[in-house]
Amino acid sequence: MKTIGFIGLGIMGAPMASQLLEAGYELCTSTHHKSAPRHLVDAGLRELPTPKAVAEAAEVIITIVPDTPQVEAVLFGTDGVADGLSEGKVVVDMSSISPTATKEFARQINERGCQYLDAPVSGGEVGARNAALTIMVGGEQATFERLLPVFECMGKNITLVGGNGDGQTCKVANQIIVALNIQAVAEALTFASRAGADPGRVREALMGGFASSKILEVHGERMIKRTFDPGFRVRLHQKDLNLALAGARELGVALPNTAIAQQMFNVCQASGGGEWDHSALIRAIERMSDHEIG
Amino acid sequence: MKTIGFIGLGIMGAPMASQLLEAGYELCTSTHHKSAPRHLVDAGLRELPTPKAVAEAAEVIITIVPDTPQVEAVLFGTDGVADGLSEGKVVVDMSSISPTATKEFARQINERGCQYLDAPVSGGEVGARNAALTIMVGGEQATFERLLPVFECMGKNITLVGGNGDGQTCKVANQIIVALNIQAVAEALTFASRAGADPGRVREALMGGFASSKILEVHGERMIKRTFDPGFRVRLHQKDLNLALAGARELGVALPNTAIAQQMFNVCQASGGGEWDHSALIRAIERMSDHEIG
Repeated sequence: MKTIGFIGLGIMGAPMASQLLEAGYELCTSTHHKSAPRHLVDAGLRELPTPKAVAEAAEVIITIVPDTPQVEAVLFGTDGVADGLSEGKVVVDMSSISPTATKEFARQINERGCQYLDAPVSGGEVGARNAALTIMVGGEQATFERLLPVFECMGKNITLVGGNGDGQTCKVANQIIVALNIQAVAEALTFASRAGADPGRVREALMGGFASSKILEVHGERMIKRTFDPGFRVRLHQKDLNLALAGARELGVALPNTAIAQQMFNVCQASGGGEWDHSALIRAIERMSDHEIG
Repeated sequence: MKTIGFIGLGIMGAPMASQLLEAGYELCTSTHHKSAPRHLVDAGLRELPTPKAVAEAAEVIITIVPDTPQVEAVLFGTDGVADGLSEGKVVVDMSSISPTATKEFARQINERGCQYLDAPVSGGEVGARNAALTIMVGGEQATFERLLPVFECMGKNITLVGGNGDGQTCKVANQIIVALNIQAVAEALTFASRAGADPGRVREALMGGFASSKILEVHGERMIKRTFDPGFRVRLHQKDLNLALAGARELGVALPNTAIAQQMFNVCQASGGGEWDHSALIRAIERMSDHEIG
């Protein structure tokens, strides 16, 4: 493909767009919400007035915006992407949004003779800057293969999980596990510290065994060193767990520990911790016990 | 040392004792509870009538019995280990029991001029048979070093975590993390399956990223393949979480997700699943949603 539309040049989107420009793709964006970062325009990013104009100019339109309502507005609002599509184009939503809404968005895009991929990412700002994102894709195999070279400019661990919505479902599953593994380490280290053991030595003793996880390694260390600069923000993890709990309600599934973890993030939020790293969930556990491990 | 006393020749103790016999240690046990397994006696294990007699005959006395009350009975009951100790001997409790009771047991053993190590293990029956246990030790550095050659006959990942009780505390922390990581994977895969995604593909997509853990790898696969033969039994994990929750009550620390996980194991138990592998916790999550992922 020659031209890619890229809508959403925030903390994640800007470095991802930058990778695509470096790889030689022609990129355009919409300035309906705000103007594009200067360094991207200098690198060749073309500014167009609306998502509709972007969809008219590009063969593939990537969106990466905060949440479900923003995706809906960009795709189906006034002068939205849908109004500019013509047959054979592909809409790729890399935001993290509702799996059920995604299925409906895909259906509406398919009706216009176009393909849809949901392709949310994990790996955060650092992953975006290093083109090392994990990309979880839902959609058709052929479309996935067509987009693979584009994804490979931005990520490393790229999986077609299933049909439309399954990429978003996988991202929600990821965020459930990450939150609950953080709470697992937080409860264990608070218990250990309160019982008089050194949480750092406990963490080391557990690293090789069945308790080992990426979270014990990375977030466990942050809890012990008390370094709660993000990383991934409490506020954003709250949003993702909200997707999990709203989805659970729609689907009729009970997620008791996910619900508790969301409440722990609410405790952080109540302490002004929306911008803390999500490993600061331990502060909510500690606060309940009036005890700090560090 | 020449002779080791070994009290508790159950699923874990028998293969551990077997390793020590193979390594050339003289081993004796007590038949006060029941007679020793034939194959160990054939391999040279000496049978004595009481824990007291074992403590008289041995320089180091290892115990590995079901729970706190059994350790107390073996050490301090009638004709118990304490009655047979003389200065300079070492008591090594490899059971998984209460950290606070352990501190009191150690104090009483120290009063008799002897040393105490708490040295609970993880790695299960397979780890015991392959001399690949993780051993988490609490006690004095010099005693730890004296016992290290003995531990190395039974385990691979051997850590002095801190003073007496800290080994048990570390084991409790381990069991908290393992249980909560199991529930994390159970909630995520049930959500994913209910949302229409293939849980096997979701698990694979998540394996490289921040959701990755030993539990996602091993227990996630068991959940998908529906293989719930133990492994590590629900009944035993319930006991360990009971230590966590009883300890939390004593220490004044709140462990909300640990409490929920214990309830999920109670659901398994109520379904006759005390002997299932602990990965079957997912059945409790599924049961609440009337949905099975496999």
